[in-house]
Amino acid sequence: MTEERPREKKSLRSVRASREGGARRRLGTEERRSQLLELGIDAFSREPYDAVSIEEVAARAGTSKGLLYHYFPTKRDFYLAAIAEVSKRLLASTDFTSVVDPLTRLAKGLSAYADFIDRHGLAYGALLRSGIGMDAQALAVIESTRGTFAARLIESFPGPVSQLARTALVGWIGFVEATSLDWVARRAVGRDDLIRLWSTTLVSLTEQFGMGATV
Amino acid sequence: MTEERPREKKSLRSVRASREGGARRRLGTEERRSQLLELGIDAFSREPYDAVSIEEVAARAGTSKGLLYHYFPTKRDFYLAAIAEVSKRLLASTDFTSVVDPLTRLAKGLSAYADFIDRHGLAYGALLRSGIGMDAQALAVIESTRGTFAARLIESFPGPVSQLARTALVGWIGFVEATSLDWVARRAVGRDDLIRLWSTTLVSLTEQFGMGATV
Repeated sequence: MTEERPREKKSLRSVRASREGGARRRLGTEERRSQLLELGIDAFSREPYDAVSIEEVAARAGTSKGLLYHYFPTKRDFYLAAIAEVSKRLLASTDFTSVVDPLTRLAKGLSAYADFIDRHGLAYGALLRSGIGMDAQALAVIESTRGTFAARLIESFPGPVSQLARTALVGWIGFVEATSLDWVARRAVGRDDLIRLWSTTLVSLTEQFGMGATV
Repeated sequence: MTEERPREKKSLRSVRASREGGARRRLGTEERRSQLLELGIDAFSREPYDAVSIEEVAARAGTSKGLLYHYFPTKRDFYLAAIAEVSKRLLASTDFTSVVDPLTRLAKGLSAYADFIDRHGLAYGALLRSGIGMDAQALAVIESTRGTFAARLIESFPGPVSQLARTALVGWIGFVEATSLDWVARRAVGRDDLIRLWSTTLVSLTEQFGMGATV
């Protein structure tokens, strides 16, 4: 599948080289860590936590289980690092806080969000499903991702935001997440329709719950 | 040990009688199962999966770990039964499909939903957080809960529902879930405001995405 391929050409190349048993390149510490993380994101996106084999991931990286544990001491650490990395990328790729005009900022942000779920749907699903009863730290990752989105939205408004308006924004983030997961699974509507659905819903919420007309 | 796996009421009774000197009430099979399930819902609502101790739950029920495993062979079975029970109760308590008028049906349904999260907030959270990467069966419970809500909504509409409208309904369910979890955690707005937020959002979605005016 093309969508979950390693992002950078460099690490992609090194993964291939090792997988094909050809001339194995020596990786620096940072490069090795990135490579393993990339393979971790891929593995935890495709399979349930329990089904992911550290041994297999290490083999795909052309390295040993021991070396993987050197970078990520436990499977749980590896998992947490993988979902934290997905969160970081999602937040970074949708960050247009430097854009002054709120409507342009929103449009760019939503479009980038759609691109992210388009290209990294499985990883996105893994991040959202990380809010698991099992693990407080995993829950913290997704909660903090949501919190960042909420804060960005709230900053877009000129005046104070009421508790009801805040609740509406929390709801809207849930709306975007639910439709994103549905879209990743079914692709029942076009990308532009999806973005329009998000923005019109946000606009009508802002109109109804007194968040001003600047977003 | 027969003591740990009594299959019938008779042996259950004799176990209890010998262990507790007959002071405690004798529970029938169904009654015992309900009691354990209730304690399971409570335990899995309060603590992450890994932190729940089957031994403690059994102790709270005044019974043995072995007896609990007679009803629920593994901890995972016990967990799945607990979240399935929460789902069943949530769906039952919000089921007004017999009410003919769609607007009344919606109003009653939303009010009952608010009552449920008001009274069973922790259990509700446990159900929603059960959509875990770890466990496909747990994910199936929450997915089927959402599917039932979506089907109920879709049935409310007189004509065919477009894919975009379906996506909007999926989003609205995500909106309700996100605001419910927020409300359980913070209670930042009143119950009636919350219900109004849900219904006005649904109404404006139905108006925008051509689902007719009957809901």
